[in-house]
Amino acid sequence: MVVELVCVGTELLLGNIVNTNAAFLARQCAMLGLSMYHQSVVGDNEERLKETIRTALDRSDIVILCGGLGPTQDDLTKETAAAVMGFPLVEDAHSKERIEEYFKNSPFKIITDNNWKQALVPEGCIVIDNHNGTAPGIIMEKDGKSMILLPGPPNELIPMFHQDIFPYLNRLQPETIYSVMVKLCGVGESLVETEILDLIEAQENPTIATYAKTGEVHLRVTARASDEKEARKLVKPMLKELKKRFGSHIYATDEATTLEESIVALLKEKNLTLTTAESCTGGMLSARLTNVSGVSEVFKQGFVAYSNRAKRKLLDVKKNTLKTYGAVSEKTAKEMAKNGAFITGSDICVSITGLAGPDGGTETTPVGLVYIACAYQNELRIREFHFKGNRQKIRELSTVNALTLLRSCILEKETAGK
Amino acid sequence: MVVELVCVGTELLLGNIVNTNAAFLARQCAMLGLSMYHQSVVGDNEERLKETIRTALDRSDIVILCGGLGPTQDDLTKETAAAVMGFPLVEDAHSKERIEEYFKNSPFKIITDNNWKQALVPEGCIVIDNHNGTAPGIIMEKDGKSMILLPGPPNELIPMFHQDIFPYLNRLQPETIYSVMVKLCGVGESLVETEILDLIEAQENPTIATYAKTGEVHLRVTARASDEKEARKLVKPMLKELKKRFGSHIYATDEATTLEESIVALLKEKNLTLTTAESCTGGMLSARLTNVSGVSEVFKQGFVAYSNRAKRKLLDVKKNTLKTYGAVSEKTAKEMAKNGAFITGSDICVSITGLAGPDGGTETTPVGLVYIACAYQNELRIREFHFKGNRQKIRELSTVNALTLLRSCILEKETAGK
Repeated sequence: MVVELVCVGTELLLGNIVNTNAAFLARQCAMLGLSMYHQSVVGDNEERLKETIRTALDRSDIVILCGGLGPTQDDLTKETAAAVMGFPLVEDAHSKERIEEYFKNSPFKIITDNNWKQALVPEGCIVIDNHNGTAPGIIMEKDGKSMILLPGPPNELIPMFHQDIFPYLNRLQPETIYSVMVKLCGVGESLVETEILDLIEAQENPTIATYAKTGEVHLRVTARASDEKEARKLVKPMLKELKKRFGSHIYATDEATTLEESIVALLKEKNLTLTTAESCTGGMLSARLTNVSGVSEVFKQGFVAYSNRAKRKLLDVKKNTLKTYGAVSEKTAKEMAKNGAFITGSDICVSITGLAGPDGGTETTPVGLVYIACAYQNELRIREFHFKGNRQKIRELSTVNALTLLRSCILEKETAGK
Repeated sequence: MVVELVCVGTELLLGNIVNTNAAFLARQCAMLGLSMYHQSVVGDNEERLKETIRTALDRSDIVILCGGLGPTQDDLTKETAAAVMGFPLVEDAHSKERIEEYFKNSPFKIITDNNWKQALVPEGCIVIDNHNGTAPGIIMEKDGKSMILLPGPPNELIPMFHQDIFPYLNRLQPETIYSVMVKLCGVGESLVETEILDLIEAQENPTIATYAKTGEVHLRVTARASDEKEARKLVKPMLKELKKRFGSHIYATDEATTLEESIVALLKEKNLTLTTAESCTGGMLSARLTNVSGVSEVFKQGFVAYSNRAKRKLLDVKKNTLKTYGAVSEKTAKEMAKNGAFITGSDICVSITGLAGPDGGTETTPVGLVYIACAYQNELRIREFHFKGNRQKIRELSTVNALTLLRSCILEKETAGK
């Protein structure tokens, strides 16, 4: 089945925002095994919107529109799409009630007349409740085709898609798709592709696709079958093979879990506490870890020791070490990690010291040279990196590699103990 | 003049990457005063690509295509666009030389045959050198229309656009565009729009456009005139008016400067040192500040005091304060800021303590309640916020509002002293 996207909004044509909805929807449709040949962006103009929707409807089986469902005059998607499909607009009592409820809980908001137009829906359509905003999603079906209208804001569109649209699209097709995302850390994209070249070349059902992220590689394994149970069975052998080949490099096998979430879960599981000691990353590492809800059980404090003096005062790094080896050195990274753990009484401490650039590089200490150390019980691990990229990139790479080292320290200690 | 974008690439249709090129190009075209009514994404398929290009050429004066200029079989943009425009492909000696040079400097790269196809160009076109890759940019002109082909990778497209395409497009039009970005902090989008409603409604030349960012509002003032000198003159009165209305809320009047950059510049100018004391933001604030090259002159260390005990041990927050008022309180925020400055000997300390959620909220301490304090010399400022959003959003809002408070403390102290 062929699906097409039409994203509505003048802010997209003006470049005010990046079209993340298109990437999200395209990815979900690919997961569903739908073919996508076109995406369009059009503004809040009735004539051009009508023309774009018609073109899409003519050449595709499913048209997904996002944006333009709000209460203002510029929001034309619903009226225009309904007109193209040939459905009149009628008031949906359920949606009207939900809008009343939404504003009831915000005593300072006045329900202006134009908000009520969000309760109008194309006759006979499927109404999809919006749990994060006022505009309901809409599905219209006619002559074997489907037109799906979704709200523009990603925090409304994404949950709605996961909860209602994905299952709907999955049911539309004779086959069901089941997909697993295998997430790897500590191994580069080229190496991963080389390792699974045979799987990529032989793929039929399931398929395997590679996505590169900063410091991570994600592999999506997708199978299609008559129902989900069969599809899950088809996915199993390939998952097993990936586990065999990549072992503990795999930190998650689901869409949602981030590397920091998997690490915090691991720390909780093992009843361990963590401290961070950062220099050039300036707090990026602790910021990433503290994005995990419930991290307070395992993380109590972090150090941002940006200057040499701060390294001495906060982390007891020896004056002589800094003088002889410099702030960006193996010795300094090790002392930061070891002392960070000792001072705070934490089980583990990860330290990062390096040169993020663009200035300050020398022959011995070039921009991109970063040392990451991890102190855990009696072990003290150290890694040296030569990152490429701008300041932000070097700091991001330092952060994700610190998380990777931290994780492997916890896991390997566990294996060593057996 | 009407411009249209066609982004070529199956990876876009599969949702493997986000279409940042479209947002960048759309924004640049808006700055140039060009009207954009359509954007399309199409894959590496000759028929569909041809159809999409033809449709764009029929309805627009300028068509910008990006992607598909590489050496592989899937790269069809040049051949297809040239065919639609009716130009044969010929070898461009200059481009061939540049490709030879490019590979000469990479002794391990073998120049495969398909790389030479990148030296073929439509007859009579303008060839644009690519300083970051092998594929040259192409401009074809015919019957009063222009078709511009750009390489897909952003690190090749963006510099090429700035250096060659922007000036070309600026020359295409009888008038020149000059644009200034006025960046505001510490004032919300609705309030800004209300303040400049008269300017928005009366706008002709220059025009004024609003862009909302997290905790910031950016206003783009754009004038068109016969040359840049005249355009600059036209922009002046509106800039003056905005300065009058928003005063010190304006932290920059250029595209590039970030809020943290402007603050670090201010600290350097006034010879001040800064410390950060964070709880719920966990390092986000110091991470943002340390993204600024040269920040080490003004920032030496930051505290991430995530637990109550860490607040006591690292920042000397009184046990009684935490017991009586709790970690998320005005008193705790003030002690964190005051003590942070004292302990480190820094001139200024900004502290953040709050509840980022989603768990832990109570009636007295709901999710989103955040206190931000700033200690500077004898002054101790405190702000209470009730942020809405998920954990990440609340932390981002806390961070940008801390930067805003920090900035206003420095500026107002300066004014008070006069």
